[in-house]
Amino acid sequence: MPLGASVSILNKTRFIIMNERLKPFGLSSGQFPVMIYLIRKQNIMQETVVRHFHIDKGSIARSVKKLEDAGFIRRITDPGNRRAVRLFLTEKGEQVAPEILRIDREWQELSYAGLSDDEREQFSALILRILKNNLEDVHNLGVCTCADE
Amino acid sequence: MPLGASVSILNKTRFIIMNERLKPFGLSSGQFPVMIYLIRKQNIMQETVVRHFHIDKGSIARSVKKLEDAGFIRRITDPGNRRAVRLFLTEKGEQVAPEILRIDREWQELSYAGLSDDEREQFSALILRILKNNLEDVHNLGVCTCADE
Repeated sequence: MPLGASVSILNKTRFIIMNERLKPFGLSSGQFPVMIYLIRKQNIMQETVVRHFHIDKGSIARSVKKLEDAGFIRRITDPGNRRAVRLFLTEKGEQVAPEILRIDREWQELSYAGLSDDEREQFSALILRILKNNLEDVHNLGVCTCADE
Repeated sequence: MPLGASVSILNKTRFIIMNERLKPFGLSSGQFPVMIYLIRKQNIMQETVVRHFHIDKGSIARSVKKLEDAGFIRRITDPGNRRAVRLFLTEKGEQVAPEILRIDREWQELSYAGLSDDEREQFSALILRILKNNLEDVHNLGVCTCADE
């Protein structure tokens, strides 16, 4: 199977599986990356989140809005600087955080089923190199102008 | 980096890169899987295409519609059986076919840059096992009822 087809189908199966497992918590795959990021780095500038997810700005903005509407996160604007918006998990967000981390780990576990530790490490190292090649190409395209990833 | 994050970001970079390269031909990443499939299997039942892409029915239906509207493919309904719809590449579709195959190969090449043949084979074998684990889980979820993949 060509690499592109594998990556594309794998991403879709992940999306379906994560959606099924997140559903009971009122979350969907689309909101998952922002939630994971906020769980790991509480009290963060919205601008930093946007920069982190620079390759996907539009959908990240929609995720932030949905998560806020659903009460998982809140936005606090610095009264002295309207552009300085910070994002926090609410109490509801804190409560689902461990479930979300568990669902992510479980997906990784089911994906790696039957692979030895060596094979997992090999795969993990190789996909990172492939990802790096892709990120370089995206940056060379100039479709995003941000510094970090 | 967790496996989920790698897969998700890799899929996004692929999407961006493919979009940029397909743009001159009036195509987008979303239409790419259906085009590739039709290039490889001309004159096919629409039902077969839908079954092949069963994990993603909605977006496949939209792709078929867009490709038809843009003149890359056409649909022919058997006069004796209205449910028997066949899909073909048009002349315009045939003309872009080699470019599309080239763009797919080039993405694979840029992704694998710096990896030895052995590493490419290792990666390819491992991602297939991971994909198989995922497809099994999706089938067990019962979100799709089709037989093949």
